[in-house]
Amino acid sequence: MMNLLLISNSTNAGEGYLDYCKRDVADFLKGCGVSRALFFPFAAVTFSCDEYERKVQAKLLPLGVEIESIHRAHDARQAVREAQAIMVGGGNTFHLLKSMQDLKLMELMRDKVQRGTPYVGWSAGSNLACPTICTTNDMPIVAPESLSALNLIPFQVNPHYLDAHPEGHAGETREQRLLEYIAANPHRYAVGLREACALRLSGDVLTLHGNRPMRVFKAGRPPQELHPTDDLQFLLR
Amino acid sequence: MMNLLLISNSTNAGEGYLDYCKRDVADFLKGCGVSRALFFPFAAVTFSCDEYERKVQAKLLPLGVEIESIHRAHDARQAVREAQAIMVGGGNTFHLLKSMQDLKLMELMRDKVQRGTPYVGWSAGSNLACPTICTTNDMPIVAPESLSALNLIPFQVNPHYLDAHPEGHAGETREQRLLEYIAANPHRYAVGLREACALRLSGDVLTLHGNRPMRVFKAGRPPQELHPTDDLQFLLR
Repeated sequence: MMNLLLISNSTNAGEGYLDYCKRDVADFLKGCGVSRALFFPFAAVTFSCDEYERKVQAKLLPLGVEIESIHRAHDARQAVREAQAIMVGGGNTFHLLKSMQDLKLMELMRDKVQRGTPYVGWSAGSNLACPTICTTNDMPIVAPESLSALNLIPFQVNPHYLDAHPEGHAGETREQRLLEYIAANPHRYAVGLREACALRLSGDVLTLHGNRPMRVFKAGRPPQELHPTDDLQFLLR
Repeated sequence: MMNLLLISNSTNAGEGYLDYCKRDVADFLKGCGVSRALFFPFAAVTFSCDEYERKVQAKLLPLGVEIESIHRAHDARQAVREAQAIMVGGGNTFHLLKSMQDLKLMELMRDKVQRGTPYVGWSAGSNLACPTICTTNDMPIVAPESLSALNLIPFQVNPHYLDAHPEGHAGETREQRLLEYIAANPHRYAVGLREACALRLSGDVLTLHGNRPMRVFKAGRPPQELHPTDDLQFLLR
């Protein structure tokens, strides 16, 4: 039975890193009966994996969650095999996916999580759980060998989903981008997950957490707003 | 001698399509002695190539520029060989690049432009002229076989470069994204080209056009603002 917590964003505007969601992360892991997670820092680009590990550890340790970052493992594949839980931090999704592919960890991690090891990700870490990273907001600063991701859920998540549009700027809105995604990929659902929200998969039950609805896109239908009380099971079919 | 016009954006906020730059496009082509361009509409995703051709033709015909879209050519490679000028419209850069690769037009177009056929692009069309599409703002809605582009210039352009940041949102700024790009690609310059601006390459002379400076990023140095009067030749070395 799979256990996933896919968080839109690490940090709400004006708050400290992970502050709004660190308790959700700790509760999720405790609910799964674990207190230790293997951390994947590879979405970091302009700061080191050491720094990333320290930053996350500092927020979670007071809540009883210990992390160990995979960049310090002597044998990364063995570390995945032995992990109590998987935790994938945000940053640049292309950099994260390329690093995972280069280390040949993708299939191993998918198997591990599908066999029940809890997975928590935020931002790029939530993108990684999707069939592909095609709904990331990130700049393709490096080229992964493919855009295929862990495929732990059968739909695409767009983290940091944003309704606003900078004034006086003519670039695409987030909605326009996702409408393009479904036009090019008519078989797939894409979910705009607003900031301060998360998706939780427990076995075959999918739920939305947070105070805002999510926006669901599918080719041939108008976008749909779904609330935490709505039935989301159609996304898993 | 190469002749390139790389425009940041088709449309300024609140204006009609191509209105601010259509005269620059026409003047560029006339200055190169041509009045007819082969149009590449493949960045279009949510509207048809026919529509795209009509929209661009309607703006340029009154200025004496006739276009023919390559999607109607019986032999696309032959059409490229015979083109008086190349014109690549904006839209989704990944969709554009994948279509060009699928049609096996990349090398042919590069050779053609390097041998002197004028090239004008806007937005995704400007990204396509770079070594890679790694500094696009677009969502990777489809997967090109690689991110390598035409490599007509030795630096990366980020079109629609934006200083503002939506309020109450914690996603990356454009500057943060380009700082990540140069961290992952320390050998490359990246140029943030603000809206209503364009780069012009005439042989080995590079100039900036528009009323705003461009922002130049290189690993190990602070970002630099360069104005239309500044010497940009270092970007070509």
